[in-house]
Order: sequence, then structure tokens, then C-alpha cells
Amino acid sequence: MIFITHAQDNVGIVTEVSGLQPAFSVSPDLQARELVPFGQKISLQDMHKGQPVIRYGQVIGYLTEDLEAGRWLQQTHIDLPEAPTLDSIAWKKTDLPELDPLAGYTFEGYRNRDGSVGTKNVLAITTSVQCVAGVTEYVVDRIKKDLLPGYTNVDDVVGLTHQYGCGVAINAPAAIVPIRTVKNLALNPNFGGEVMVLGLGCEKLRPERLVPQKQGGNGESDILYLQDESLDGFDGMVTEILAMAERHLEKLNSRKRETCPASDLVVGMQCGGSDVFSGITGNPVAGFASDLIVRAGGTVMFSEVTEVRDAAHLLIPRCRSEKVANRLKEELRWYDDYLIGGQADRSANPSPGNKRGGLSNVVEKALGSVVKSGSSPIVDVIAPGERVQKKGLNFVATPASDFVCGTLQVAAGMNMHVFITGRGTPYGLSMVPVIKVSSNTPLKERWHDLVDLDAGRVITGEHTIESLGWELFELILDVASGHKKVACDKLGIHNDLALFNPGPLT
Amino acid sequence: MIFITHAQDNVGIVTEVSGLQPAFSVSPDLQARELVPFGQKISLQDMHKGQPVIRYGQVIGYLTEDLEAGRWLQQTHIDLPEAPTLDSIAWKKTDLPELDPLAGYTFEGYRNRDGSVGTKNVLAITTSVQCVAGVTEYVVDRIKKDLLPGYTNVDDVVGLTHQYGCGVAINAPAAIVPIRTVKNLALNPNFGGEVMVLGLGCEKLRPERLVPQKQGGNGESDILYLQDESLDGFDGMVTEILAMAERHLEKLNSRKRETCPASDLVVGMQCGGSDVFSGITGNPVAGFASDLIVRAGGTVMFSEVTEVRDAAHLLIPRCRSEKVANRLKEELRWYDDYLIGGQADRSANPSPGNKRGGLSNVVEKALGSVVKSGSSPIVDVIAPGERVQKKGLNFVATPASDFVCGTLQVAAGMNMHVFITGRGTPYGLSMVPVIKVSSNTPLKERWHDLVDLDAGRVITGEHTIESLGWELFELILDVASGHKKVACDKLGIHNDLALFNPGPLT
Repeated sequence: MIFITHAQDNVGIVTEVSGLQPAFSVSPDLQARELVPFGQKISLQDMHKGQPVIRYGQVIGYLTEDLEAGRWLQQTHIDLPEAPTLDSIAWKKTDLPELDPLAGYTFEGYRNRDGSVGTKNVLAITTSVQCVAGVTEYVVDRIKKDLLPGYTNVDDVVGLTHQYGCGVAINAPAAIVPIRTVKNLALNPNFGGEVMVLGLGCEKLRPERLVPQKQGGNGESDILYLQDESLDGFDGMVTEILAMAERHLEKLNSRKRETCPASDLVVGMQCGGSDVFSGITGNPVAGFASDLIVRAGGTVMFSEVTEVRDAAHLLIPRCRSEKVANRLKEELRWYDDYLIGGQADRSANPSPGNKRGGLSNVVEKALGSVVKSGSSPIVDVIAPGERVQKKGLNFVATPASDFVCGTLQVAAGMNMHVFITGRGTPYGLSMVPVIKVSSNTPLKERWHDLVDLDAGRVITGEHTIESLGWELFELILDVASGHKKVACDKLGIHNDLALFNPGPLT
Repeated sequence: MIFITHAQDNVGIVTEVSGLQPAFSVSPDLQARELVPFGQKISLQDMHKGQPVIRYGQVIGYLTEDLEAGRWLQQTHIDLPEAPTLDSIAWKKTDLPELDPLAGYTFEGYRNRDGSVGTKNVLAITTSVQCVAGVTEYVVDRIKKDLLPGYTNVDDVVGLTHQYGCGVAINAPAAIVPIRTVKNLALNPNFGGEVMVLGLGCEKLRPERLVPQKQGGNGESDILYLQDESLDGFDGMVTEILAMAERHLEKLNSRKRETCPASDLVVGMQCGGSDVFSGITGNPVAGFASDLIVRAGGTVMFSEVTEVRDAAHLLIPRCRSEKVANRLKEELRWYDDYLIGGQADRSANPSPGNKRGGLSNVVEKALGSVVKSGSSPIVDVIAPGERVQKKGLNFVATPASDFVCGTLQVAAGMNMHVFITGRGTPYGLSMVPVIKVSSNTPLKERWHDLVDLDAGRVITGEHTIESLGWELFELILDVASGHKKVACDKLGIHNDLALFNPGPLT
């Protein structure tokens, strides 16, 4: 009926769906003094003003008034501590725990020429500028209807449309972020190396920047400019694009699944619409699975700078080397400056929904968020829009905004996505399978057709973090093999991409 | 074969599609000294280094080297002048020319309760956060397929999806821009006052902020939260949304067109993919039509701060009062600061395509851009995301980025859109009819199915700016009445909306 995350905690979390009634006896020593709703914090001892509130064994804030044992600890009772300054956090050479290797796990994937492995077989149409989005959406529909039925081995066609490319400060320092993102999106393993680009012709972002150098390639024939003078109107454009698409569909259609070791997994971990259970159930379950993937030699990425920023003191010591620690500090510092530049209010995260869900502040949220990275060392830190290079646990620096984070993880090269939610969000991507994990069982019961795995079962004692961590790992392998379809793919609900453009519009 | 825009100009524009060949005699006094391609500038006299280059009777830059008469004046020959500082431009009480009123022009529109007039009859589904975009797109498809055929008087259903609402600094000073934009989009006259909002539940942007106060309204029933605990999964959501949509479709279906004076027109002028002809043909034709609309008592908006910034010295004196002039300076100054904050390079506009099209720099582009506002006084200046209040010519401060400008003009309340292009862009909106005007005939010939009106006919002498201005005005009335369909509606190519969010993501 209450859940305590660490022996040193002085607050517990109510797991009773109807809440704790006043005078309810939690234990011989502890009685609820008022109604404490589901997901909210109850004080475990008499506490005085100024005393630290401890959760996950960490200070999440300081009491603004005295609070007796058994009271509902609300957001107004707690002051936000200052974020640890990055300079004050030292990296030390310590013996980071090495996890035991895990052998023998495989999945059926599409091996690409560059060694990466796809979990889907998708034709992606890259776009250099927002101006071509309308035409791109039109032709994607046409390709699905007229061509795809003839290429039964290709799963889907997606237009990588976005709002960048022109009307932007293309030479501003921050412009490199959206530009490399658009380029790297097209290189996601699920697209099989078949890059085709629709450009307009007069845009600032030159389509040539988006096409990788080919070995003995066919030159510029993978780019079509709508302004090309040889095209006869809209019909002419559509005919040309369909012909280009067909060339790529033919190649994609010949891809075959083969048995690949679990070390070819590249899994992006993300949470959105978090509640107080995310940090006790969904994120620890994801963290356990993260460790399994790393132990199997695979790649895991976690992200969301603003949600881990207040746990920097826990992350920096976990970096594999001082160089990696410095890269992490660099990315966090960049983001601090970016937020200051926009006069962002640090207390604006967590969202109102997070707060109603029981999260007091960003510190508590950060502690619960970092848990999904498991316990392995951080081997690399990736700037937004760049691709992951190393196997093991990577921190991919992104905003916490779900769509933007997901887009940057697609660009970083993930072939599987795990999305943990407590309050519920109908998140889904068409290009990479998204496994949605609920942090509480009521959500799974309500959203039975939207949630793939219920981590809320940890609360009832029916399952453990370990058992559900294994279940998630097995589910990742099944979905990656195409043996199971995730909820959002069954329903056909998918988000648009959302680029991170920290630079100005012009 | 060449076109001179003002008696004081010392450059002409080549209107010969194949360009001017070396030694070609333009006049007894002027011979081309090299090949000068179509759309490019030819020097009309011997000029020396440092001499001002004059176009539209205005300095567009200074020569970087001596240049003989008959040479091709290229971008490298010209230095960008400093933008006039806003403080140095004074507003003086002058007798601004009042245009003669124009009576007797009408169109058939949908009169709304608030007095505004729609030119289409569209159900819009507002969204408070990007998280609901996937579900919104799904239900829009379902409504189109399952419900719309039963409401034959309703033209279309659109989801006002966007990338704002959560994962953003909602309390940053700049947040007000996207928030009021989302709210005001739903109030566009073409949506008939039928606001329905899909929210998630835990987002930062509260859906309640998006619903206008109703007279004796039905409370919160126009908002559906996907996280609502009474909804049974995805199917439950879809069922509820369809029921809500049906209530609004019924009301929209009873709307009838009635004869409205041309003073009910609210026309947004925009250009994109401009070339050197935009400022001689398309924009002056649009400017002539602007004056006709203002003379008929209607409303015209022009926008694109970065493209008019270098013509501030021409715009400020045109303001109706000192108050309006100060508002204009305020918006231009805000944008200057915004660009400096992002370290934007002023020379990044015009785009590479603009330059290939013959535009030397942003000054030349600005002079050609402002022309589409016609010659009437500026009666008001509107901040991005706000609604137009006054009839007459309004400056609506927006980025030049086509999609963002269009979105802000929809939010400002336009019921007709004119989009002028020289190089060609397949721009289109589903909510407001977009008349696409080509600035040159080759584009119209190539994009015969994408362009609605060819202003290039001015060049051949076949038509005048005045005659085509009238043609555009009549076309606006015909399209507004539903008597003619614009190209992008016939083809079904429409852009997504793109919000202007000057604040940071979190």
C-alpha cells in the first residue's frame, strides 16, 4: 500500500488506487493523518522545516514547514534545491562495475552494407525543406496505394518531412543541429541505405548535403528538385518521384531477415507523461533491460537533458573516462546556456500533469528518469543530431520534449524504441518499432490497446523488476524480429518527426 | 528585352528568356558586353567602384569595382549597405494619400456570429499538444471517410496539429507567441466558430486556455482529454471524438453562403521562392489588388519582417499615426534582437535560389517585397499570433519562412491568401484558399497545374500591372465565393501548419 524506494527515504509512495484514508494504519508506527491520494508522497517520520526530503536515497528538496509523520507531502511543502554546478562535480577514476557478459540471444534482422541492422524494412523519402512537405505527403500516399502492394517485402513508406530548410538562419552556430539531424535520419538502419531526397531547388539547405558519398554511386540521381525545369507540372513531378521510389523499392524488396546477435540492437529509451510510478516501476524495468542489452554487447541510448540535469552528480561518476565525463558536462552546459538565453523557468519542468501524478519537482523527476539507463558505465556522449558510434550505454543529448527526443534518437541510429509512460501518451513512430510500457496497471487496463507491457505489476508484488526486465528484453527481441507487432503499429497511429532547431527563424 | 523599374535606376533586368547575347544591342546607346542571363541585372551606364547601385529608385548597395555599361552586374559586384537604424527613421505627420473608395463589389461568403465571414466551411480540430497529433491525424481520416459524406455542405476537416504544448518553456517570455497562435488559429472565420480541442491531459499548455468563453455555452464539452479515465482505450477515444465532431459538423452543415461586401475580405499577402521578377510583376500586381481591396473597405495583411526590414525607411512614413509607426519599430526591433540572440547572419537572406534568380541582396529583395502592400496607409501593426482588428492595410509581424508566415496569417484571421512565387513553390493550405501567382511566364507554363494566375504577362507587354491587378481582385472574389477552386485544392496538396516558437525547448 506504500512503496519505499531506498532505505534512507523519509517519504513513501501511496500504491493504493483509492488512496490512504485518514487514520489508516500503514504499519504499527505509521498512520495516515489525512487522505493521501494514489501516487502521492506520505511522510514516514515527524519532520521539521528545512529538513531534507529524501527519495531514492537522494535529497529532492527541503521542507518549507514542519510536517508530522503520516501527512500528505505536497508540492508546496518542498523547496527546489539549486542544481549542482557542473564544475563542482568531479570525475574520479574508479573501478566502474563491469556487468557480466550475456551470450546466446539473437533476433532476426535486416543486415545492411554498413554493418548496421534494421528491424523494419522501410522506404524513407528525405526532404531538404518544408516547402516540399505537401507534395511529399501526397506521393507517400500514392506510393502506398499504387506501388507498395507490388513489393510485399517492404513494410512501409515514410516521408521525412519537417519544418526546416529555408526561412532559417542557416549559418547560425546552432544550425548544424537540424542539418545533421535531417541527414542522419535518412541513415537509420531501418531504411536500408536507400536514400532518396526531395528538394525544392531554391532552399538554403542544399539537398546535396543530405546524400552520403556513394561507392561508385549513380551521382545526383537520388535527388529530385521540384523546380527542375524538365518537370512538366505537378503530374510530371509525381511521375518522376514514383519512378525514383520504384528503383529504391526494388532494392529494399530484396532485403532478407537473418539471425543477428543481440549486440546488433540499438535501443532508444525514453519516457513521457511520467508519474510517480515511472521511477519505481517502468524506468527501473527499462533500466534492467538496458543492462541486459549492454551485457549482450548491444547499444542503449538514454537522453532528455533537462530531466537528467539534476542528477548530473550521479551520471558524471558513471562515465567510462574523464573525456566522456567532460563531454557530458559540455552538453549539459550548452543546454544550461540555451535555457538561460530563452529565459526559461527551471521550475516549469515537471509539467502540471507530472505534478498531479505526484512528482514534486525536477529533481525527483530526474532521479526517477535516470533509472532507465540501468547501471552500466556511460561509454559515450552524443551531441543532438549525431550518430551513436560505440556499443554500450550512450547518453544522447536531446531535449526532453517527446517528439524531438524521439526524432534525435532515430537520427542517432536506434533500431528499437522503448517508451515508458505513467499518465499515458499515444506516442508512436512509423520508422522504428515503439514498445510502450505503462508504469501503473490502471493505465494498462484503460489503454489496453495502446500499451505493450505493464510494468505496474511490480507494485502488486505479482512480478519483480528483474522478471519484468527480462520480459521487456524478450519482447524487444521478438518485435525486432518482426514476430510481434507493437500497439501503435497495429492501430496505425504515428507521430510526425520534430526537429530540434535551437537557431532563429528568418 | 530589359525592364527598368524606375527612372533613376542604373541597372535593368533582362527579360529575354535566353538571356542577352554578347554584343546584342539593347538600344542605340547600350550593348551587352557579355552574356547576361534571364532575370539578371545589366548595367545601364559606366559606373565606378563605390557608386550606388539604384533599383526601384533606391540604393540596393555599392559597387565593389568599376563596371562598364552593358556588363552583367553580379552579386560579387555589390556590397550590402547597413540597415537603416530604426531610431534614425522619423515618422512625420504628412497627408497620406487616401485612396478613392470602391463600391459595388461583393462575394458569396459564410457570415459568422462574430461578424467575420468565411470563404470555406471547414471543421477544425484544435490540439493543445504535439502528443495528440498521431491520434488527431487518425481521426481526421476517419471523419473524412465515415462522417463527412453525410454533411455535404461542409468542405473539409483539418487537424490543427503542431509541435508545441509540452517539452517547452511555457513560462518563458516568448511562449505567449505560440500559445496565442494556437488559440487564434481555431478562431479563423473559415471554421465558423465551432471550436473543438483534443488535449492529452498532462501537457503544459492547458486546453482550457484554447477555448473562447461562450455565451451560455456547454462548458468543457468542447475539450476531450485522451487521458480521461472514462475512456476505454484507443477505440473509446475515437468513438468519443467522432461523436464530438458530429455535433460540430451538424452546426457547420447549416451554414449558408450569402452575399457579402468586398469589405469582408481579409487577404493575406505572401511571397516565397522569389526571383528578380517578383518585384516587377507578381508583387506589384498583388499590390495593385491590395489597394483595390482596401479601397473596397476590406482588410489586407502583409508580413515577413526580415524581408521588409531593409525597407523600414519606406514603411515607417506610411504608418497612419505615430502610434502605429512606433508599434512597427517595436516589432522590427524585437526581431533584430531575436536574430542577434541566435547569432543569425543577416546576409543569409536572400536564399541561394533567390540569388540565382537575380536578387543581389536583402535590400533589393525587401524593396521588391514591400511592393505587394500597395500604396495605402498602414493602419495597424499586429504582433505574431494576434488577430487583425482594423480594416485597411495591416502589417502582421511574422518570420519570412513561408509556412510560419502563413500559419500566423491564418491565426490573424485571413479568409483569402495570395502567394506570389518566381522560382516556384507548391505551397497550399487546406483551411484558407491560396491563389498562387507566378512572377514569370516560364514558371506558369511549366507549372500549369500549380499556378492560378500568371503575372509574368506584364513583361511581354500583353498586360499591365493594372489589368492583372484587377484580374487578381476578381479572382479573389470568385474563389472567396466558392465559384472557382484554386490549384492546390484541386490537386489536394496542402502544407502542415508551422508555429513560431521563439522560446526554448525543455
